[in-house]
Amino acid sequence: MANPTTCPPLTRQSVTKAHELIRSRVHCTPVMTSMFMNQLASTPRKSAKPIIRLWFKCENLQRVGAFKVRGAFHAIERLKQEPGWLENGGLSRGVVSFSAGNHAQAVALAARESNMPAHIVMPETSSRVKIESVQGYGANLTISGRFDREAVAAQIVAKTGARLVPPYDHPDVILGQGSVGLELQSQVAKLDAIISPSSGGGLLSGTALSCEGTGIRVYGAEPEFEGADDGRRGFLSGKRITHVETSTIADGLVGKLGLYPWEIIYERRLVDMIYAVSEDEILDAMKLIFERLKLVVEPAAAVPLAVALYNEEFREMVEHTAGDAGWDVGIILSGGNIGTGRIAELFS
Amino acid sequence: MANPTTCPPLTRQSVTKAHELIRSRVHCTPVMTSMFMNQLASTPRKSAKPIIRLWFKCENLQRVGAFKVRGAFHAIERLKQEPGWLENGGLSRGVVSFSAGNHAQAVALAARESNMPAHIVMPETSSRVKIESVQGYGANLTISGRFDREAVAAQIVAKTGARLVPPYDHPDVILGQGSVGLELQSQVAKLDAIISPSSGGGLLSGTALSCEGTGIRVYGAEPEFEGADDGRRGFLSGKRITHVETSTIADGLVGKLGLYPWEIIYERRLVDMIYAVSEDEILDAMKLIFERLKLVVEPAAAVPLAVALYNEEFREMVEHTAGDAGWDVGIILSGGNIGTGRIAELFS
Repeated sequence: MANPTTCPPLTRQSVTKAHELIRSRVHCTPVMTSMFMNQLASTPRKSAKPIIRLWFKCENLQRVGAFKVRGAFHAIERLKQEPGWLENGGLSRGVVSFSAGNHAQAVALAARESNMPAHIVMPETSSRVKIESVQGYGANLTISGRFDREAVAAQIVAKTGARLVPPYDHPDVILGQGSVGLELQSQVAKLDAIISPSSGGGLLSGTALSCEGTGIRVYGAEPEFEGADDGRRGFLSGKRITHVETSTIADGLVGKLGLYPWEIIYERRLVDMIYAVSEDEILDAMKLIFERLKLVVEPAAAVPLAVALYNEEFREMVEHTAGDAGWDVGIILSGGNIGTGRIAELFS
Repeated sequence: MANPTTCPPLTRQSVTKAHELIRSRVHCTPVMTSMFMNQLASTPRKSAKPIIRLWFKCENLQRVGAFKVRGAFHAIERLKQEPGWLENGGLSRGVVSFSAGNHAQAVALAARESNMPAHIVMPETSSRVKIESVQGYGANLTISGRFDREAVAAQIVAKTGARLVPPYDHPDVILGQGSVGLELQSQVAKLDAIISPSSGGGLLSGTALSCEGTGIRVYGAEPEFEGADDGRRGFLSGKRITHVETSTIADGLVGKLGLYPWEIIYERRLVDMIYAVSEDEILDAMKLIFERLKLVVEPAAAVPLAVALYNEEFREMVEHTAGDAGWDVGIILSGGNIGTGRIAELFS
């Protein structure tokens, strides 16, 4: 990973440059719409009467099935540009990463395409689909305990000299993820807002950077179960939450907001608000995405739609802000990595 | 339904005209590829060593979630062009259809967009998702017994004067479905073959017409369970099978080949062969489509992929015909209408 102090400034222009650097490596994923979903979003459930038109950004159809490749490719391209790194044999030492999920696959793929080894540490609780995928990309896999993956990764760094690519708390990763927001802006004529899932905050803060100065408002979406709404609680109290332990079905969103994301989201106020939804609401939104959009998404990816459809606070805000004109709202479907066994469990 | 004797000839040119007539009403659905799927298709399982590159035509992302809208819109547009039909009040009498599945939704939507009533007869065994969808399009719904839907539809025709739109055995329906093949040809540079699911044969025969004279070979795909491979058995024996009763999981493919499709598929030899696969193979292909393509498909839509991946007879044929150059094979993902409850049952 490039030294953070040498990274580009965290601005919309830097997101544009990141996008140029990774454009040939990632898909420009399609944007889908659904008359049914628009009607549902614009039908009052309780008191709020918003008019909402939804634009689904299909990052579940991204390479490795999630937006995470954007940050991973950007981090690795930037590493290759670091003065001396290539010359000092960086390519043969490669990269290290730790992740239970999509970031692991993303780093494995990005490393392979640059012909460098990837050492991936995954906790023993990782899903079969994700482990098989990482192995399929030819990475060196180490299975760790549930809570010592960072320590195991550090040992590999010490032993091999490979460079760490953290999952979200790094400027290069954030700038890469922000390219989702840029693409969405180029694909939808008039966008009023974007809702992004929030976990470590890489995607949310990157999206927020991509919208700075455009007038497009950015919102975070979290599960509320067992305190998984750490981002929201921190945002409301002004103090970043540093410990989260939850068994929400949205297992991609159990992380706590990182320092760099926090600065963008809260200190710079580039995110307007973070909303939280219940487990039932997440599952209902996920069912709708399967049945109506015919898309496979993991639970985390259904959380922004759950906010748009079910969160009264969000819906009242839209009603009062947008009025009769309504809002065009981008919904980031962040990933689709879920096995059929888990799908069956959730929908039984 | 227009009188069959007044219909355009069953040729590629007529498919082109049908496509022009419905182009503004239907989506040009995306074509997806997957490196993983290509590797899997090109890895020997038994003796056959074919090289196969797959191009997935996503009709599950079509309006109403299936290719059926193409035939329905074409049938209704042609009806509106029939001399005297509009003048004699056809629009106020509307159309009638019977279907357990996607054709019902397709006719309901197409009728609504022409501001005419639709009377839809669905058997009591129809899925919740499909019934709700038909009601959502504002059709007049009649629930019939499992085997008397045609008779119930005939009663409605007699009572209302509405015109019947049959699900597959009509030239206008076949020509509309054939537009899938035309689109695929325009989306993939060099296509060697297309595999289509086969039930009543509307999609298969329409696709075959769209490929006539192009050099692209067309194959049918069926379940083999409990005699569901009626198309294949008829094709091999030279005698159309007129009775099928099967409980295959591919519940969209239980119909028997219609007379018009039979003429195109068998008499005119526009289909090279029909292959059949087992229930396990269908389920495995369906899992791969969910986990790797991140697409929701109904079991019927997974049957062509099952042929490409698991049918040794097909794979040996490709090996011997294509040699080292391999083949680019279009796979029609025909529909995605399946409820999450049924998904859970299948994947448990």
